[in-house]
Amino acid sequence: MYNVKVYVTYKESVLDPQGQAVNEAISRLGFSGVSDVRVGKYFVMNIKATELEINRKVDDICDQLLANPNMEHYRYELEELGE
Amino acid sequence: MYNVKVYVTYKESVLDPQGQAVNEAISRLGFSGVSDVRVGKYFVMNIKATELEINRKVDDICDQLLANPNMEHYRYELEELGE
Repeated sequence: MYNVKVYVTYKESVLDPQGQAVNEAISRLGFSGVSDVRVGKYFVMNIKATELEINRKVDDICDQLLANPNMEHYRYELEELGE
Repeated sequence: MYNVKVYVTYKESVLDPQGQAVNEAISRLGFSGVSDVRVGKYFVMNIKATELEINRKVDDICDQLLANPNMEHYRYELEELGE
């Protein structure tokens, strides 16, 4: 069993209006020196798989559901949990 | 200058319907052994601050904007960038 953390963000080439909106809101709150804000999705889940299967399984779940391959890219972290 | 990654998720006590919906979608795609899916927000930004200021600045930005203290908790990672 693995604890899997997936981070999905827009590709650099894709405009991130939500990130811009957050950046402006941060400035309006009076915080200076904050730039290049990008907003993404974060998924945490447990997955039962062998060491050989886990990467392929996570990639398939990301490619088929969690990330839009046209606009987004993803990375993930695996933490092995006991059985 | 720091590159800051912020992860915002619901507190354990809070129902996560979006996480349940993703869990069901993953099962419908034919993936077995996936459980406890939780969905959160992920922010990446650059922040100009000294070593002494940076933690307090990120905490304030999270407390005042990025995370709803009633329902969510957050964690973050700092990476020091050159000037």
